[in-house]
Amino acid sequence: MHDLDEFTVTEAALTQMANTPDARLKQIMDAAVRHLHAFAREVNLTPAEWLKGITFLTEVGHMCTPIRAEFILLSDVMGLSALVNALHDKTAPEKGTDTSLLGPFYREGAPQLKPGDSILSETAAPEIVLYGRVLDAGGQGIPDATVQVWQTNEHGQYDLQARSSEQMDMRGCFTTDADGNYHFRTVRPLGYMVPMDGPVGKLVRAQGRHGYRPSHIHFLVGAAGYRELVTALYFADDDHIDSDTVFGVSRSLVVSAKADPQAPLDLPAVRYDFRLSRAAEAGESRVGADPSKIVKAAE
Amino acid sequence: MHDLDEFTVTEAALTQMANTPDARLKQIMDAAVRHLHAFAREVNLTPAEWLKGITFLTEVGHMCTPIRAEFILLSDVMGLSALVNALHDKTAPEKGTDTSLLGPFYREGAPQLKPGDSILSETAAPEIVLYGRVLDAGGQGIPDATVQVWQTNEHGQYDLQARSSEQMDMRGCFTTDADGNYHFRTVRPLGYMVPMDGPVGKLVRAQGRHGYRPSHIHFLVGAAGYRELVTALYFADDDHIDSDTVFGVSRSLVVSAKADPQAPLDLPAVRYDFRLSRAAEAGESRVGADPSKIVKAAE
Repeated sequence: MHDLDEFTVTEAALTQMANTPDARLKQIMDAAVRHLHAFAREVNLTPAEWLKGITFLTEVGHMCTPIRAEFILLSDVMGLSALVNALHDKTAPEKGTDTSLLGPFYREGAPQLKPGDSILSETAAPEIVLYGRVLDAGGQGIPDATVQVWQTNEHGQYDLQARSSEQMDMRGCFTTDADGNYHFRTVRPLGYMVPMDGPVGKLVRAQGRHGYRPSHIHFLVGAAGYRELVTALYFADDDHIDSDTVFGVSRSLVVSAKADPQAPLDLPAVRYDFRLSRAAEAGESRVGADPSKIVKAAE
Repeated sequence: MHDLDEFTVTEAALTQMANTPDARLKQIMDAAVRHLHAFAREVNLTPAEWLKGITFLTEVGHMCTPIRAEFILLSDVMGLSALVNALHDKTAPEKGTDTSLLGPFYREGAPQLKPGDSILSETAAPEIVLYGRVLDAGGQGIPDATVQVWQTNEHGQYDLQARSSEQMDMRGCFTTDADGNYHFRTVRPLGYMVPMDGPVGKLVRAQGRHGYRPSHIHFLVGAAGYRELVTALYFADDDHIDSDTVFGVSRSLVVSAKADPQAPLDLPAVRYDFRLSRAAEAGESRVGADPSKIVKAAE
């Protein structure tokens, strides 16, 4: 029997979990207990603070619905999602384009569009063109690659936020030509705040953070035999380009729309070439998920 | 701007939280991010495992109701509650009796009983007597100390589990005499499983753990000017005395009921003297809470 103090209780917990049949579950929970206990010891967590933490997590749980993934938001604002992304990137067989967060607004089945189409059904904002190539790690164009795009409109809203209907908008799916080229029209998206009306928003505010994500366009690029690329392009002149609340911005993903005589359309243009790594083994997955699937899995 | 990898993302997160106005919140969240990130790096958490974790936490949150504190249960089975208890004990000005978890079954307003009364309204099980003194750290008896007691019956059920009514039973409140003496009758409680029908129970089972708490009687002992003592006495011959699922047992809290000529009643007896530390500053709190208050606070 242990005489439990703040150190021996950790040993006792690890001992009791030592016979976990699944080796990976054992490894993860062993590490979770050690790091959780080290955290509590480091800050000398008091009973009142512990109870605040329990209440906060309960509140986060109750906020989760089929259209609101508050625990993912918590992971995002603590930088955990970006960290898991970075760890995942290291497992790619080849160096591809840097990745970024999938986020909660990806939807399957976006409309298939033709090169040069606009991804917006209507807009009063000035148009820009995005173009470039999808390349393999050696720089060869990949034909028939799928380029899925989604973004906010010029008011910072995704389709589901801008309209009452379920109709998809500000998103689309393109296919590269024989040389790997893609191009489409859109408007410059506006950055936006992460949802601030829940417990995670309260925490972000209490930390003196602004809660904004800089203006960005999401991409999901895929081709047979290549690792799926989940990324986003960020606009350089956004006020929050250096302080994304969910840590999605990498220097290599920052772009500007400018006059470009080589662009396929006479509009301010962003040129970006995506590089795909060969696929690793099967069963790769993304950092991010449809909130309705999480809540369904949790029921 | 950072180029984010699995290390620089930690710096980026800490930088963004560096202006938190509340110094204690800053300290706690800084440590939480560092330890959470260190955990993810150590186990090389994959996107699929991350999503499993998000789903698990969502499930735990949805399980929380006014009568079910699933996040406290998670804290309990990971040893965090016992650890926070141990940290709290170290802040006592004097060495008192070892503490143990409050648990979710404490209820305010238990009936005030007279010395020697039974805390059970009825029972077919053989009775035992518990007796002893409430002492200060110097060994002097404390008169008029309050001794609150609660436990399961011989079938391992607390009052709310055993009956459909709200009526309190298997609990009571006693007051020590001029020399600090208390005594009361009860039956030997049966150990029980923590709630195993939720996500935490699934985890405990997946870890190959039995889920039992050994047979025990809860005590909450208080007197003006002294630190409130939250503890429990555990029965030595219980099969799970060395493997309490929530890590509540300390050697000094293990007892047996035996023949005892000095006992105030002719029944198998447990003698236990409780020692109280002087109170520290005001506003002390307990590790544990009424689930209905957590859910209320979370709404």
